[in-house]
Amino acid sequence: MVKVRDLLERIANAMIDEERKHTIEEFVHKKNWQALREELSEWPLPEIADLLLELDKADRVLVFRMLPRRISGDVFSYMESEHRKGLLKDLTDEETRHLLASLTPDDRTNLFEELPGQVTQHLLNFLSPEDLRESRQLLGYPEESVGRLMTPDYVAVRPEWTVHEALEHIRLKGKRSETINVIYVTDQSWKLLDALELQKFILARPDDTIDQIMDDNFVSLSAFEDREKAVFAMQKYDLFALPVVDTDGVLIGMVTIDDVFDVAQKEATEDFHKGAAVAPLKTSYREASVWSLYRKRVGWLMTLVVVNLASSGVIAAYEDMLSAAIALAFFIPLLIDSGGNAGAQSATLMVRALATGDIKLNQWYKTISKEMKVGIAIGLTMALGSLLLGYFRGGFEIGLIVGITMVTLVIVANIIGTILPFLLVRIRVDPAVASGPLITSIIDAVGLLIYFSIAAMVLGQVG
Amino acid sequence: MVKVRDLLERIANAMIDEERKHTIEEFVHKKNWQALREELSEWPLPEIADLLLELDKADRVLVFRMLPRRISGDVFSYMESEHRKGLLKDLTDEETRHLLASLTPDDRTNLFEELPGQVTQHLLNFLSPEDLRESRQLLGYPEESVGRLMTPDYVAVRPEWTVHEALEHIRLKGKRSETINVIYVTDQSWKLLDALELQKFILARPDDTIDQIMDDNFVSLSAFEDREKAVFAMQKYDLFALPVVDTDGVLIGMVTIDDVFDVAQKEATEDFHKGAAVAPLKTSYREASVWSLYRKRVGWLMTLVVVNLASSGVIAAYEDMLSAAIALAFFIPLLIDSGGNAGAQSATLMVRALATGDIKLNQWYKTISKEMKVGIAIGLTMALGSLLLGYFRGGFEIGLIVGITMVTLVIVANIIGTILPFLLVRIRVDPAVASGPLITSIIDAVGLLIYFSIAAMVLGQVG
Repeated sequence: MVKVRDLLERIANAMIDEERKHTIEEFVHKKNWQALREELSEWPLPEIADLLLELDKADRVLVFRMLPRRISGDVFSYMESEHRKGLLKDLTDEETRHLLASLTPDDRTNLFEELPGQVTQHLLNFLSPEDLRESRQLLGYPEESVGRLMTPDYVAVRPEWTVHEALEHIRLKGKRSETINVIYVTDQSWKLLDALELQKFILARPDDTIDQIMDDNFVSLSAFEDREKAVFAMQKYDLFALPVVDTDGVLIGMVTIDDVFDVAQKEATEDFHKGAAVAPLKTSYREASVWSLYRKRVGWLMTLVVVNLASSGVIAAYEDMLSAAIALAFFIPLLIDSGGNAGAQSATLMVRALATGDIKLNQWYKTISKEMKVGIAIGLTMALGSLLLGYFRGGFEIGLIVGITMVTLVIVANIIGTILPFLLVRIRVDPAVASGPLITSIIDAVGLLIYFSIAAMVLGQVG
Repeated sequence: MVKVRDLLERIANAMIDEERKHTIEEFVHKKNWQALREELSEWPLPEIADLLLELDKADRVLVFRMLPRRISGDVFSYMESEHRKGLLKDLTDEETRHLLASLTPDDRTNLFEELPGQVTQHLLNFLSPEDLRESRQLLGYPEESVGRLMTPDYVAVRPEWTVHEALEHIRLKGKRSETINVIYVTDQSWKLLDALELQKFILARPDDTIDQIMDDNFVSLSAFEDREKAVFAMQKYDLFALPVVDTDGVLIGMVTIDDVFDVAQKEATEDFHKGAAVAPLKTSYREASVWSLYRKRVGWLMTLVVVNLASSGVIAAYEDMLSAAIALAFFIPLLIDSGGNAGAQSATLMVRALATGDIKLNQWYKTISKEMKVGIAIGLTMALGSLLLGYFRGGFEIGLIVGITMVTLVIVANIIGTILPFLLVRIRVDPAVASGPLITSIIDAVGLLIYFSIAAMVLGQVG
């Protein structure tokens, strides 16, 4: 229910944008730059970025050039990667130089990450020596690491300063920093001693020393850690920014919650895709080409075909029995689907609970026994339903076979669905791949084996 | 790959906790309260909450009582819902009164939300008249609305004040506010005029008026809007806090990013579960009982059994043909699984892209034509593989049937997987339910129909 209203609203919003877009286009075509500037000055930056995406390519460059220099970097960062690349091509060298200089260090890393290597090399030439050194260093951290999200522009103060002195320093340095909501306390060698929210400085007495308002209570990250670590820490500690330190505890930068929030959403999307046997896309769906979508999907599908051959093999092995009792075939989709669905439920519950830290790896035993119980309850319920169905379609024997298969299969599927994610983590594969098609395909083969074994027993015995 | 390292680390962390836990338990058993207080004073609050969960019930209350009053409310809020309920039962009336008073308004709403109605009614008696009025008002907003996330404790200033005056006011009121990272500007009737980050006040000259540092550029939410709206706005505008206004634009509270971040994770978990045919759990997996897991899962499974009856019906309709060419049965799992997998891929890509706003509802035409192309490419690749498999297992005719079915089915599955989420939104159902078992079950029936129709044509014609 939740998303529907929102989606409808977004369409409505899209229409309002249409109107605003026409206003802007008119200004551009009449070359009324003054009116254009005034109109845009009241817009939030992400909306200017949205507008740019909607304009013709020629108008887009014109409007972008009109933007006050102080906001053009931010607007650029709010644009989508594909459009950023396009815009960069249309800018002069001088404009490119200014644009790059106005980006924050983390946005610059983000831009370089998504451009092809030689374009990045070319752009690095436009940077000032200081920015170049900084960008080289940030790009040196592993992909998807905390370092890649980090900005080195923070404000740090010393414990022996007074609050008044610290505020003076914050005023001086704060303009260059991405945020001064959190201020760091370091010693002379830049070793991190504490992280304090700006409000502490405001609420303290001006002649208190920093030492006095410190709480010696902070959480920091290493630049080499996975960026998911930042997501966990931000969520657990409810922080707006996290300091990043090197192995000696020296402060080298900070990560802000807006970037971490984006990472969390991207990681969730990746998990959704992996769960549906789609390799991570790297770009948004809208930007993905047909060819890249093909490549991200076909590999898993072909792999699953191989898994499905096991199912074909099982049916082939029981060919004679199936010919003799063709009614058995009627229930193949029902049984393997129900098993697959139950397995997918368990696997998805596990995968998500592991990903959010809701259950820990060492709780596998407790979890399996819980899922066993759930499986038995669900299996018995489903067996009752399918026993009746089987009876009406194929008589008493078939009903018995279908019922017994259902309860056995649902319990087995639950167990496989629970264990598989834990096993994958053990062998260092992301468990997210377990939640959908993979588990379904495995359970299909297992299910058919159970079905025909039970059929052989019942038909052999009763028949 | 991402999560593995992290999961292993979490086990390591769990072991360290074990050691710390023993230290604490020793202090408790030796009644060494002084040492206990000192030890805990250095811990981040979420870790104290974690510790409490690990302790015996008796020790838990003892340690909780030892906590300085100023942090006990926050520690309580970091605990899991089940444990909060347990702890509440063990506190005296006086302790309950103090605890409730020390909670922030949004945490208090959150607590009341998850308690049974009569417990909440009982607890409301312990509130001061002001807190009671506030809680009644917050609980009056719809479930999952912005109002339920909101705190009325913000700091607002007037445009005619100087920065110096404003900072004085912030110092005075800031202690009670959840955050002063964002300060609101209102007129005399509390109509919201602007939202300014605290850093603007610090970086401005003390005798500037607020009017001068205002940028008239802010985004606000209505208390009745869905909480997902807050997630979208925070992500789009990179904000730390969002003001909440009533229909006249009067400021009534604010929503902070930490709460919104939690909502985003919860909504993603809900979508994962829905995608696997699990009804939203309301609690974490760890806290969910066997009975509640059973209820959340069995409904969808039984519904899908009904959908699967269509598949049984199709096979039954082609019983004679199947008996005559039993090799056709070998390929049933392979074909319906491949179709289901391809459909699940498309559906998941759609569902997630719609949920994150990556594609909009009015882009359905463009999206379907893109998915068609991807479907044709994947279908042809898969057909080639399965044609060969069919040929080796069942001869030329079977190979032909399997190959043609595969390409047709994959294309059809892609189209159904793309359209279904859009359709569900239209009829106001959350599209997340489309991504897994539902789409698989639908495609199974469609796939069998395609398979047997093609088989009938080929076998009728060639044979």
